[in-house]
Parts: sequence; structure tokens; C-alpha cells
Amino acid sequence: MSVLLEFSMVPMDKGDSFSEYVARSLDIIDKSGVSYKLNPMGTVLEGEWDEVMQVVTDCYRKMSEDSNRVSCGIKIDAQKGKENRLKSKIKSVEKVLNRELNT
Amino acid sequence: MSVLLEFSMVPMDKGDSFSEYVARSLDIIDKSGVSYKLNPMGTVLEGEWDEVMQVVTDCYRKMSEDSNRVSCGIKIDAQKGKENRLKSKIKSVEKVLNRELNT
Amino acid sequence: MSVLLEFSMVPMDKGDSFSEYVARSLDIIDKSGVSYKLNPMGTVLEGEWDEVMQVVTDCYRKMSEDSNRVSCGIKIDAQKGKENRLKSKIKSVEKVLNRELNT
Amino acid sequence: MSVLLEFSMVPMDKGDSFSEYVARSLDIIDKSGVSYKLNPMGTVLEGEWDEVMQVVTDCYRKMSEDSNRVSCGIKIDAQKGKENRLKSKIKSVEKVLNRELNT
Repeated sequence: MSVLLEFSMVPMDKGDSFSEYVARSLDIIDKSGVSYKLNPMGTVLEGEWDEVMQVVTDCYRKMSEDSNRVSCGIKIDAQKGKENRLKSKIKSVEKVLNRELNT
Repeated sequence: MSVLLEFSMVPMDKGDSFSEYVARSLDIIDKSGVSYKLNPMGTVLEGEWDEVMQVVTDCYRKMSEDSNRVSCGIKIDAQKGKENRLKSKIKSVEKVLNRELNT
Repeated sequence: MSVLLEFSMVPMDKGDSFSEYVARSLDIIDKSGVSYKLNPMGTVLEGEWDEVMQVVTDCYRKMSEDSNRVSCGIKIDAQKGKENRLKSKIKSVEKVLNRELNT
Repeated sequence: MSVLLEFSMVPMDKGDSFSEYVARSLDIIDKSGVSYKLNPMGTVLEGEWDEVMQVVTDCYRKMSEDSNRVSCGIKIDAQKGKENRLKSKIKSVEKVLNRELNT
């Protein structure tokens, strides 16, 4: 089973600039050993359910140390019999169109 | 800490009518003992982080028994020093407007 | 076509308590004439695509008058040949389980 | 105002493999002239509100020609006084950590 999980997590009590707090999450993600790709609106993880959920939980524990209110959005696409979907999902769309897209 | 978690989980390989599968999740939620409210687009749980995440995980385990591809959206609003927000968040908006809204 | 659209919209620069701003959106929604139901994590609208999108746009115009950074999550379930799904989606799940759920 | 809008749109009645339908959306996006970046879980657009919403609407019109039930998730981060956030949001996180991340 390949679980793709995209999430973004932000503190609600730090004003409208909070890259310092997002960076702490990315540090946790980057050091977790889980495959990931950062995009402008979130981070996509790939792994087993427990593995990717643990990363989200670790980020939540850290952010809730510093913030009174934490907001988080998560989107999951879990598919059996697949792997390396961080790359293959984009490739399959490019293959249909027979051209490269902006990634 | 009050963690409000709304989620919806659907099988992607069962056609465009899947209330049978959603009902299995609601059965798990309803029997979990966790506070919840069902709406037309998802279910909102309230509890501690581990508690509400366990309910989502239990629903995922069940649905992935029957489906090759599971899609799930989760939205979290975690706030310190609050409780009973399943009711109080709506009430605080109605209080500002000084009238009842459709709920 | 019945378009169910759930959304939540918050200002990112007003601290961790912003029900005053959410109330302005609910005032717009409530006066729009579009069918809706408010829940603790968002508001579900039902109508045609242009109709529900216009309500979201109106709320955005209002909130961006007062805020430098606006965050918004939207989830859409559009289905042909259906109506009154604000009620019927919940009913169909309760029918499978043969009992009432918390709504 | 820079409106970053990430969305994913899928048909619910085409089984668990639907890259053909996603490709039609990407063709619309790619030809729209709006700045975008595709990731494994969605596409992030940047532009004015009306501009990015029009792209989503165009994709919806196309997909609802072929599908009886369309599901769509949208996440918006609109900020005044900023531009080129498709790149700058990632850069600002990398700057805090003083290293490159997987993008």
C-alpha cells in the first residue's frame, strides 16, 4: 500500500508570517527518513499509514508547544499495489498529454 | 486541548454510490465513544489528538479491507484551554450576529 | 446537478480568536438565499456551481477588506440527478445502519 | 494580492484509475496562461482570485461533461503585497533552515 499524504500545518496566533514555525515542521519531516516533496501549499509524504501519520503527529507535538491554536489540513490518497507515486502520478498525467508539465 | 477534527473518507473503486462504505465508518465512529457530529460533507470529532486520530485510523483499516484505493480529507482545529467546541463555535458566531443560523 | 460545497475561511492576521470575522461571512451566507448548514468546522452550501461559488467569492471580498492574509478550504461534491442532499446524504447513511446518528 | 490556490478534481464514477480525466484538467491549466506547479496531490495556481477560480471552473465544466459525480478539494492562501509565491514560500522556509529541501 502506498499512502500519499499531503499536509500543511500553521499556528493561528503568530500573525500572518510564520515561516519560522513551518520550518520546524520541515526540519522534522526532512530528518524523519520518510520520502517527501515540499510544494508551495504543503508537503506530500509517501509511506505506510502509521509512518506518515507519525510524522504529522510529531509536527503537531512540536507546533503545539509554541502555539495556542494550530490549524492543519491533510489529504490522503492510499492505493494498493503501487509505489514511488511521488513521481509516477505526475508521469502518468504527462504520458497521457505526451508533454512535460510545470512541476 | 480541544482537537476538532473533521474528516471524510471514501473508496475510489466502488462507483459513484458508496453510502454502504461510509456507513461502516459511521458505525465505528458512533461506537467509539468519541464526541462527534455528522454533516452532509463529513464528520466532526472532538477529543484529544491521539483519540480522534485513532478513530480515523480505525475507519481507514476497515475501508482498506474492501477497497484498493481510499481517499480521505482531514481538517483539524486544535485549541488550548477550550472544550465543548462542537457546540460553542457555532454559538459564538450566532452571538455576534444575535440570531440563530441554520445548523 | 446538486453541488454541495463546504468551506471555511479565516483571516490569518487577527490572532487566534476571529469569530467576529467568521460572523460576517455567515451574515452574507444567511442573506444569500442559498441553502446552507453551518457545522463546527465549516458551512455546507447546496446549489448550482455558479451560485455557491458566488457566495464564497462574496465572503472573500468582504474578508480581504479587513485582512492582509486570508486562508480558505473548500470541498465540493457535485452529483447529477440529485437534489436536497443537505438532508438526503445523512439519511442514506442512517438508513444503512437503521439508526439515528448525531447530527 | 497573490492568490495561491491548490486544487485536485476527480471523477467518482470512473474506477480507481482516472489519469485520463486528470490530464484533461492539466491541459486546460497548462493552456490557461496562469502560473502553476503540479505536485503528486494537486496543482497550485497563482494569480488574482477571479483568474484562478476561472481555471477551476473551466476544469469542472469539462469534467462534468464526462462524469456523473465530481469531487474537488481546494485550498487557498491569499496574501496582499506579495507575488511569485510559487517560489518564494519554499525559499523562505529553506532560508530559515539554511539548507535545501526536497521539492
